[in-house]
Amino acid sequence: MKIENHMLSINATGNTDIHDITIEIQNLIISSNISIGNTTIFTPSSTSAITTMEFESGCIQDFQDHFKAVANPNEFYKHNERWHDGNGHSHLCAALIGPSISVPVINKELHLGMWQQIVFVDFDNKPRQRKINVQIIGQ
Amino acid sequence: MKIENHMLSINATGNTDIHDITIEIQNLIISSNISIGNTTIFTPSSTSAITTMEFESGCIQDFQDHFKAVANPNEFYKHNERWHDGNGHSHLCAALIGPSISVPVINKELHLGMWQQIVFVDFDNKPRQRKINVQIIGQ
Amino acid sequence: MKIENHMLSINATGNTDIHDITIEIQNLIISSNISIGNTTIFTPSSTSAITTMEFESGCIQDFQDHFKAVANPNEFYKHNERWHDGNGHSHLCAALIGPSISVPVINKELHLGMWQQIVFVDFDNKPRQRKINVQIIGQ
Repeated sequence: MKIENHMLSINATGNTDIHDITIEIQNLIISSNISIGNTTIFTPSSTSAITTMEFESGCIQDFQDHFKAVANPNEFYKHNERWHDGNGHSHLCAALIGPSISVPVINKELHLGMWQQIVFVDFDNKPRQRKINVQIIGQ
Repeated sequence: MKIENHMLSINATGNTDIHDITIEIQNLIISSNISIGNTTIFTPSSTSAITTMEFESGCIQDFQDHFKAVANPNEFYKHNERWHDGNGHSHLCAALIGPSISVPVINKELHLGMWQQIVFVDFDNKPRQRKINVQIIGQ
Repeated sequence: MKIENHMLSINATGNTDIHDITIEIQNLIISSNISIGNTTIFTPSSTSAITTMEFESGCIQDFQDHFKAVANPNEFYKHNERWHDGNGHSHLCAALIGPSISVPVINKELHLGMWQQIVFVDFDNKPRQRKINVQIIGQ
């Protein structure tokens, strides 16, 4: 059994900016010494999240519209009242989706569905350079 | 340390169809060579999800009613406008819940709560035969 | 590769009571024989959940207010109609967030963001003593 830790780097614009990171993760698996195992994708941040979706413009906008409705940036947030940074909604959205997923690796491939991509979602309210952990455990 | 990959097969009807898959996963653990470790349950699809709940008719219907309210199939979705397959809401719900959970295995048992079951939720808008990954890592 | 299973014990008050459990988990890692690996945090219950957030009073209250709006305890729940225990909303909230997250461990440290804490959320409607699984896999 081996463990490999990698970091992806992403220039994210915020405001529910969604990035397809599937190919980058798949390439890390191909370059690794692991063919069967598990990949943990984890975002070390409290204003971004990891999930899967069909990465096409319709689903992307439906996802963005949903969060604009349930956590509108212009509404009142206790976080903003206290810190005046305007990203109270970003913190809420990130906690709702969560920071990690785990995806099986079988014969050097992420075992995803045909229309399923791994996405990083940046809910923050300004551009940031982001780092994402990709950890591969297996043999 | 060993890794075992299994696939469950489910006939799902869609429309927030919820299946208790706890016993099938527990049986895979009993048949495995692993007594202490971790189980990843992952759905390779962008219109279904994995979570836990008390699998009883009240909780099931409350869960279904919630998603009918926050992601009603009859509302407008960009995904439907583009692809005309009517499952824009299914994609949204699946991304909100997420595709995977990780459950500890201790002495050949899933370490679940007394009223807690592992469920597969099919949010799609028509019946499908589904496959779910069950990966057991441990010793 | 080694596996360690630990249980945290928490006195929770319910009603979206949020506990920062980061330091307890970090201490278990320091005491372990593992320096590189993965930590699964899992709540064995159907009325509580695990996620990450910035653990400060503003974010905490925004999170609590959100769930009061989307799953108000005073509304009608099929679960309550059937079981008369008044925690139908607790079950719904727990299933929405999910029971587990996975966090990489690198050089004996949880690889969290600077403002990111691991939290246990108790959605139930009365105080309970809770147990949380912390499983560390690695070398």
